[in-house]
Amino acid sequence: NGTTNFILSKMENDMEYEAALTEAQELGYAERDPSADVEGKDAAAKIAILASIAFNSRVTADDVHTEGITSITGQDIMYARELGYAIKLLALAKKEEGLLDVRVHPTMIPLDHPLATVKDAYNAIFVEGDAVGELMFFGQGAGGLPTASAVTADIVAAAENRRSGRSGRFTCTCFQDYAIKSLDSIESSYYLLIECVDRPGVLAQIAHVFGDNQVSVGSVIQKSTTAGVAEVVFMTHKVSEGNLRTAIAGVGALESVSTVRNVIRVEGGGR
Amino acid sequence: NGTTNFILSKMENDMEYEAALTEAQELGYAERDPSADVEGKDAAAKIAILASIAFNSRVTADDVHTEGITSITGQDIMYARELGYAIKLLALAKKEEGLLDVRVHPTMIPLDHPLATVKDAYNAIFVEGDAVGELMFFGQGAGGLPTASAVTADIVAAAENRRSGRSGRFTCTCFQDYAIKSLDSIESSYYLLIECVDRPGVLAQIAHVFGDNQVSVGSVIQKSTTAGVAEVVFMTHKVSEGNLRTAIAGVGALESVSTVRNVIRVEGGGR
Repeated sequence: NGTTNFILSKMENDMEYEAALTEAQELGYAERDPSADVEGKDAAAKIAILASIAFNSRVTADDVHTEGITSITGQDIMYARELGYAIKLLALAKKEEGLLDVRVHPTMIPLDHPLATVKDAYNAIFVEGDAVGELMFFGQGAGGLPTASAVTADIVAAAENRRSGRSGRFTCTCFQDYAIKSLDSIESSYYLLIECVDRPGVLAQIAHVFGDNQVSVGSVIQKSTTAGVAEVVFMTHKVSEGNLRTAIAGVGALESVSTVRNVIRVEGGGR
Repeated sequence: NGTTNFILSKMENDMEYEAALTEAQELGYAERDPSADVEGKDAAAKIAILASIAFNSRVTADDVHTEGITSITGQDIMYARELGYAIKLLALAKKEEGLLDVRVHPTMIPLDHPLATVKDAYNAIFVEGDAVGELMFFGQGAGGLPTASAVTADIVAAAENRRSGRSGRFTCTCFQDYAIKSLDSIESSYYLLIECVDRPGVLAQIAHVFGDNQVSVGSVIQKSTTAGVAEVVFMTHKVSEGNLRTAIAGVGALESVSTVRNVIRVEGGGR
């Protein structure tokens, strides 16, 4: 999504979310009511269409688990970079064991992944096919002229199809009827930011809850802030979202932990 | 071109040209007779088709000024990186003042340009449109499965067109008849590698010939090699190819200059 990518790119350069949104509105990228973009609804509508075409099975926007970028802070972006990742609003669709995994959320993407190089108001589609391998298509995803160009191309295509009596090449043939994968059953790596009391033994308590729920940790960054509060960032190995949620509830219930402030899924590793 | 991109990527990692070509052949990227790829003929055929579609004017492979990658050395690639560039075999087509500039040659591309990030057997098409701005499409450009996938897609498209009585959307309408721009009249920045006697005053002699031909220099790297020979790399500002060729002839005629070993055009600056 070009608008959210513009906002996140500005935040990478230390601009606050609100200022970045205002600039996006002034440039005509974001609408006056920006919720369709920043809450991920625009991306959800797009991935529903793309998933329907890709997998020949009807997917609607309501099927898509959708989270926007409004909870992302400059702090998350800074930690992501420290760990070797960019944060992008990613709409993804995968077919796994006869189920469709379709979702939109802020995502940590390795800095050497082609999607991480897509900045500002550009957006991109990254495709992985059995035979064709990896493909990427990118261009400007917001702004008056690029939008007008896309609309004009659609009108020309519609006119051509009408004249030739065709319905257009790209449509949902929908001869399949795949169920949508539940969010609890997806597997992912996760970034977690936890604020806790800065005293010995707290990290061990958190690690114990993680261990009880099969959450294995890949990287940890701990920084002490003012007034005896520690900020701990975890990057987990792959784990089911159900187990992760149980672990987070357990960690949040610890007397020494004040907040689990953000949870961001990681994609695009292991290329 | 996926094959040449694979070879140049290997050379970036210090492999010699011949070894890289052999590996490309073993992996099925390069054909047993690799000349269509490494001499740029494959890229010339492709850019002739793309230019015809883009500009509605018939361009054939014979119209395309074509140079391959066989003269590129690891030394050129090392200097390019030092100056902030990657070397890629680029096929380009531009319409300028009613003339078509269509050519294939090794090209220095700034490392922060999207085309510079395309590595190994991947290739890409980079498009700049009036309204749409910059677009890029990339995928694997060599290898059995990706090639089979592309051929299969073409067969499906041909079958669809045949059934619907259409000739296909992408064809040369050719209602224009643009002339091809002469190579002498193109303007470019250039990389030049000159070997000369390592003694005072030689650089001034070379600079004097450059100045007489409107060749203005942006960067210079000078390294002394063994036995009193200096290796000097120049990166020029924009100049017409005609003027550059006259300057090179003049420099080559200097008693103190042994060779002008390579001339590589630069594209993609000023984004």
